[in-house]
Amino acid sequence: MKATRRGFLRSAGLTGLGASAIGTGALLAGNDQALAAPAGPARVPADVVPFYGTHQAGIATPAQNFFQFASLDMVSSAPADLRKLLRRWTDAAAAMSAGRTIGSPSPHRNTPPADTGEALGLSPARLTVTFGFGPTLFTSNGEDRFGLAKHRPAPLVDLPAFSGDALDPQISGGDLGIQVCSDDPQVAFHAAHDLIRLAHPIAEPNWLLGGFGRTGNSTSQPLPRNLMGFQDGTANIKVEDTAALDRFVWAAGPASPAWMHGGSYLVARRIQIALGLWDASGLDTQEEAIGRHKVSGTRLTLMPSFAHILLASPRLNGEQQILRRGYSYTTGIDPTTDTTAAGVMFLVYQRDPRKQFIPIQESIAGNDGLSTYITHIGSAIFACPPGVRRGGYVGEALVG
Amino acid sequence: MKATRRGFLRSAGLTGLGASAIGTGALLAGNDQALAAPAGPARVPADVVPFYGTHQAGIATPAQNFFQFASLDMVSSAPADLRKLLRRWTDAAAAMSAGRTIGSPSPHRNTPPADTGEALGLSPARLTVTFGFGPTLFTSNGEDRFGLAKHRPAPLVDLPAFSGDALDPQISGGDLGIQVCSDDPQVAFHAAHDLIRLAHPIAEPNWLLGGFGRTGNSTSQPLPRNLMGFQDGTANIKVEDTAALDRFVWAAGPASPAWMHGGSYLVARRIQIALGLWDASGLDTQEEAIGRHKVSGTRLTLMPSFAHILLASPRLNGEQQILRRGYSYTTGIDPTTDTTAAGVMFLVYQRDPRKQFIPIQESIAGNDGLSTYITHIGSAIFACPPGVRRGGYVGEALVG
Repeated sequence: MKATRRGFLRSAGLTGLGASAIGTGALLAGNDQALAAPAGPARVPADVVPFYGTHQAGIATPAQNFFQFASLDMVSSAPADLRKLLRRWTDAAAAMSAGRTIGSPSPHRNTPPADTGEALGLSPARLTVTFGFGPTLFTSNGEDRFGLAKHRPAPLVDLPAFSGDALDPQISGGDLGIQVCSDDPQVAFHAAHDLIRLAHPIAEPNWLLGGFGRTGNSTSQPLPRNLMGFQDGTANIKVEDTAALDRFVWAAGPASPAWMHGGSYLVARRIQIALGLWDASGLDTQEEAIGRHKVSGTRLTLMPSFAHILLASPRLNGEQQILRRGYSYTTGIDPTTDTTAAGVMFLVYQRDPRKQFIPIQESIAGNDGLSTYITHIGSAIFACPPGVRRGGYVGEALVG
Repeated sequence: MKATRRGFLRSAGLTGLGASAIGTGALLAGNDQALAAPAGPARVPADVVPFYGTHQAGIATPAQNFFQFASLDMVSSAPADLRKLLRRWTDAAAAMSAGRTIGSPSPHRNTPPADTGEALGLSPARLTVTFGFGPTLFTSNGEDRFGLAKHRPAPLVDLPAFSGDALDPQISGGDLGIQVCSDDPQVAFHAAHDLIRLAHPIAEPNWLLGGFGRTGNSTSQPLPRNLMGFQDGTANIKVEDTAALDRFVWAAGPASPAWMHGGSYLVARRIQIALGLWDASGLDTQEEAIGRHKVSGTRLTLMPSFAHILLASPRLNGEQQILRRGYSYTTGIDPTTDTTAAGVMFLVYQRDPRKQFIPIQESIAGNDGLSTYITHIGSAIFACPPGVRRGGYVGEALVG
């Protein structure tokens, strides 16, 4: 609650409201309490995920219930502008993650508020903001705009085409990626909204997608179901398993350059589900496509050779694993089938996509029982640098 | 929790799983508990809003955090099919509202599950399902398909064009409307998904929209902010104010026919916000457009003549009021402005739109300070019949 009240106070300041304009008891109470609070570092409330640290938050964080993912392209080609943007984003993300508003007091009431305000009074609800750099930030159409080509990590490959892909370039790629997660959808939207706003005119958005219904990735949470009605995340890496994180998620040498050590590579795939077709399939067919019983989530005793969980299993993929943070999204009615339209935003973190996502997807795509029902329509890959020290900014070791 | 566990049990039955396939302890525990439970009527858990009653649930219910709204058109012209659909929908909605799955045990595992399953194990989270009948159910292109033309209520008018409307017919109108609300977005989606599925082939969907971030309509809840950053619902009818509900919300004679008494008329408007333009406006400009201070929510001392809350106020509208259940929705990036795209689904319940929504909207549209920033892009009106007695079905007094 303290973080929220500080938010109110700062907001009152930044919007230039005088005392006469502060009309509610709650606001005044927040004001008084903030003034009386000691200046030292406060305890971290349970609904705050620390922004600063060895790794970026939002990777080894138990998945929050809601997400927004934004992809942006640089408009400016000036390295100084890229640094300015990353500094601005870092400061804003740190403030919002702590439950504070963005920005400093504005001297004029006829200027736009520094914070759009829709999260005022809300808990950050475990808000995390995770930044990544796409291949095109390093080289775009053969051009090395920012002098970064020589620093491009070998694992940050251009993803190959997979069987059954139907990628739409309008919802693929990007110089910069931002994953926002929170247990409050309004807090998640606010963060994406304001980070996109703050990028103007240095960078402009390509695409933005929001949703709900996380994949399980923590031993501390019940296992959720996806919109196909099956539990999702049983065999996922759990964020509490630090040995697995070190082995499969955190980038390290020699494959990755020093500026990426402690970071991770994110593959983002927007996967449309043919939900009408799925719903019309028999229970046997559904269970065989997945390899699990629908209600109980237990593995089938007789596992078909095309079962999704079999073809995706570490045993058939050189013992490789990935950390999944999937979310459901819905898009109204599918006009071609007159059925409900939905999908999964598949967010996968790993140490090296060349050994993890790519071979696993090559094993699955077009071969597993789910391939009949899903289509990959969006795709992106990002190098997410390590965490930020207080006073620093994300990607500083690359662009600083 | 009992409702949820019953859901597990019924689901285990309906999907035809034998005991050998029920693998988890939780499932067995649920099974045992359900078997041991008394057969009489159970207490209503706090997360269950009763489906049966004088009025349909979801109108005078404190607004839940998430919504889905579906519009469907009849494909069949047989009155018996309409009755069959309304009976099927009623039974499914009653089951889901109580935290149970849809349907009865299926004898064959090679048939599709009677319930798609994505809400298995979830609390209903105050799920409500509210049904309405559009003007075209009574007369469509001059045709009286179901013999209902003579029963069309006078308040169920075709809405006039308003200043600034830019309506898209693809997301407007409908023979049948379903409002689904829940505090769990997956529960809300599941209900809309399965009600659309159950309608096939009698009726097919026109449009479906989901979102979050309710307008305030209850004294029991904190006042939320919309995506323009302002508190929303300060002057709304509160669902605890039964005198206001009787005066402004519940349909009654002589204006409404007997089959609508205790029902309500719903006007649904999809309102796009020019969020980039709004964000770039000064704080003064924003506050004058609304008529309130942004942070505190208090009314401006000097109220401009174009302030939204002034032009919408009962004092300037013959003392008329409406019950609003607004929700925010987001649609990624607005390609024309490269800014975040969002809007409000404005769901308004009232006793007679001819005296309430229509004159109020005529007073506001094109005149208030918000008109610069918003565009109505979708529109529909529905007559929502009164509540359902146990054993009956929604609209029975009209079509039965």
